[in-house]
Amino acid sequence: MPTQFDPPSGTRDFLAADWERREHAFARIRSVFARYGFEPLVTPAFERLDVLLGKYGDDGDKLIFKILRRGEHEGTGEADLALRYDHTVPLARVAAAYGSQLPTPYKRYAIGPVWRADRPGRGRYREFAQCDLDTLGTTSVLADAEVICAVHDALTELGLDGFRFLLNSRRVLAGLLEAFGVPAELGPGVLITLDKLDKLAPGEVIAELTERGLPEAQAAALVGAMTAGDAAEQIRDALKGSDEGAAGLDEVDSLLALVGRQVPGDRVVFAPRLVRGLSYYTGPIWEVAAAGGTGALAGGGRYDHLIEQLGGPDVPATGGSLGMERILLLLPEAETRHTLLDVAVTIMDERHGARSFAFAATARGAGLRASVYLGSSGKLGRQLKWASDTGARWALIYGDAEEEVGTVTVRDMTSGEQTAVPLTGLPGYLADLAARPAD
Amino acid sequence: MPTQFDPPSGTRDFLAADWERREHAFARIRSVFARYGFEPLVTPAFERLDVLLGKYGDDGDKLIFKILRRGEHEGTGEADLALRYDHTVPLARVAAAYGSQLPTPYKRYAIGPVWRADRPGRGRYREFAQCDLDTLGTTSVLADAEVICAVHDALTELGLDGFRFLLNSRRVLAGLLEAFGVPAELGPGVLITLDKLDKLAPGEVIAELTERGLPEAQAAALVGAMTAGDAAEQIRDALKGSDEGAAGLDEVDSLLALVGRQVPGDRVVFAPRLVRGLSYYTGPIWEVAAAGGTGALAGGGRYDHLIEQLGGPDVPATGGSLGMERILLLLPEAETRHTLLDVAVTIMDERHGARSFAFAATARGAGLRASVYLGSSGKLGRQLKWASDTGARWALIYGDAEEEVGTVTVRDMTSGEQTAVPLTGLPGYLADLAARPAD
Repeated sequence: MPTQFDPPSGTRDFLAADWERREHAFARIRSVFARYGFEPLVTPAFERLDVLLGKYGDDGDKLIFKILRRGEHEGTGEADLALRYDHTVPLARVAAAYGSQLPTPYKRYAIGPVWRADRPGRGRYREFAQCDLDTLGTTSVLADAEVICAVHDALTELGLDGFRFLLNSRRVLAGLLEAFGVPAELGPGVLITLDKLDKLAPGEVIAELTERGLPEAQAAALVGAMTAGDAAEQIRDALKGSDEGAAGLDEVDSLLALVGRQVPGDRVVFAPRLVRGLSYYTGPIWEVAAAGGTGALAGGGRYDHLIEQLGGPDVPATGGSLGMERILLLLPEAETRHTLLDVAVTIMDERHGARSFAFAATARGAGLRASVYLGSSGKLGRQLKWASDTGARWALIYGDAEEEVGTVTVRDMTSGEQTAVPLTGLPGYLADLAARPAD
Repeated sequence: MPTQFDPPSGTRDFLAADWERREHAFARIRSVFARYGFEPLVTPAFERLDVLLGKYGDDGDKLIFKILRRGEHEGTGEADLALRYDHTVPLARVAAAYGSQLPTPYKRYAIGPVWRADRPGRGRYREFAQCDLDTLGTTSVLADAEVICAVHDALTELGLDGFRFLLNSRRVLAGLLEAFGVPAELGPGVLITLDKLDKLAPGEVIAELTERGLPEAQAAALVGAMTAGDAAEQIRDALKGSDEGAAGLDEVDSLLALVGRQVPGDRVVFAPRLVRGLSYYTGPIWEVAAAGGTGALAGGGRYDHLIEQLGGPDVPATGGSLGMERILLLLPEAETRHTLLDVAVTIMDERHGARSFAFAATARGAGLRASVYLGSSGKLGRQLKWASDTGARWALIYGDAEEEVGTVTVRDMTSGEQTAVPLTGLPGYLADLAARPAD
């Protein structure tokens, strides 16, 4: 039931535990990407509207959040800025703006929110994290292999398992069209239809291909080869008759060899049916299928002309993107529960407030998270309840009895055991506690 | 000279070195705040427009970036969403939305961009980081002291020095107005004028106070007391005649005592002239003056009714904000220069590509950042230039000569010294390198 205090439709407030779970995942991914020599790039939340418009097709344009002009122009109802829709268009702009200041090749990752005015739904948000890594400025298949290995390592580092890389090449697909005699003008449409082989029955796909103008016999032969038990072998045979296809197969085999050395053998397979919808790919393409087939966790490929089309320089490029929101849903729950404090310091009497406040500082000095009780109850039980709520492992208690003998009581919140520690010994005692492993 | 590839006016692209410098600072601040038991809160980039409008005064409303309605409503030119203007209004909304799910008191920090359509200028941006910490739900002066100590520790942790906390209370100011016989209706205006004592000469301030309707003798007495060499003493004396003033002085003295235990003595001083512009403060107020007087690095205070005024529940609150952009300008340059790689792997021949690619993986397995050369030159000199550009400490070289004897050449990029390492010994050798401290 949405209330006036909910965040806007399709967005989320991240309270501490949720945010820390996300940040933990992002930090692991960053560290994997850095290990491969990718560097971070962070661009503004908004771009000039003309930088974004026309880059995502008509459907995409409608999903762009546009920002109203300000001041005297506000009344015009015109927009001049728009929220980032992805990390790729900003990358193209950055490549154009900073060209020679960037390393060659430019290997960068971008992790951060993008905004799309899509209809919100389960796992679909209007503000969501996108995690991209791309290499600009090289045609080497080693760069494609590097992206794939980095994505593999990132997913593994997150604790995921059982996923598979499906590998193909646009040139394999071009060779296939050639080998099966698909007229050039039907090619793009035929690929769009073939992309549905995972969702539709072969007969339905054949019917759609025929509707597109492909003779039924050709359509049946093409779909037959793509869906055969030994599809990969059949396709390999068919491709031998096409120069483009043979070159594509070489790409795929090089990638399989390079990636196969670093990734368990069954994790990366040639998938001649893989099309990937986006028309801008020019070479190898790949997707990560989750265990249990719940959709792609990541995908990418080579796009040698896109950066120029998006307004950047004419540089070859390859990259990939992790579907972070889907991945986050698959991650195991955090192993340790979220806690706010290690040491909770009670205040039994206002008179002891300053001293208790200083105890908390002593605990922080020992590297522990610590705070005094800030509520108004003078009751120990109530304050220990607060200490327990914060997840603190120890509570410090200092009242009249402790003052009299010059000690502070350290209570183990798990066992309830209490130790009287002389005031002068407190820093050392807390340092010892700080060195203890968590339960 | 702005070009079409620059980011929008008042925003910045952060390339790797800049971003890492910022993130390093934010990470230190987060770790200090966590040590005090503050937890992170991250809210969406935009809020519903009605949540923001009317919360920042007329001038503030004009600086809000408004987002155009989408779909069929786009043509109306109306806005329904707006970019976050600060972290305080979202905090009020979150307090209203999640009330009982939040810890009591709710101690949270928020670090992230906010957007204001201000005129861009030196150090003034339209997208800039704000860093807030606030405690909701307690009237205890210990909470105020905690915020001040956390801000102090954060600034110290960042490596800043020579700054001073100026401490006052709104109740001291109320007491002053009472003690000097300022009519209640003139109070707010008089405070606004007194706030200018740092910028204007005493005579100018007296003139402005007189214009506001304060008799000249009173104005002169007030300004005289505020600017005297022993102002703090004179003010303390004057306040004794006002209940409110005496209560405010108690607040200030409690804070001085609490904070003074943890902060070097000269770093926190009673500053009876400190007003702070914002009218919503109700108790202690403070500001951090930078060494050399280049303006405030941080500021805050108690605002017991603001959360309710902003649409949240009626909870007392205290907090502070760090002026991150100004602080970042003051930070010393990073001690170590930005590097992309530890190990750069050359590729002397395409035939050795797969093996070299695997060497990079071996280096990563040893915890080193590593990548193969992705360019097209087969020349060693060119590839070593690339290795040097990445900041790599070592280059691996594997060509025909190495293949023949089954070794890989490890070149120390600083000394130029080269070592032939047997292939089977490479993992161990790289692990040893990884354990070496950086120069």
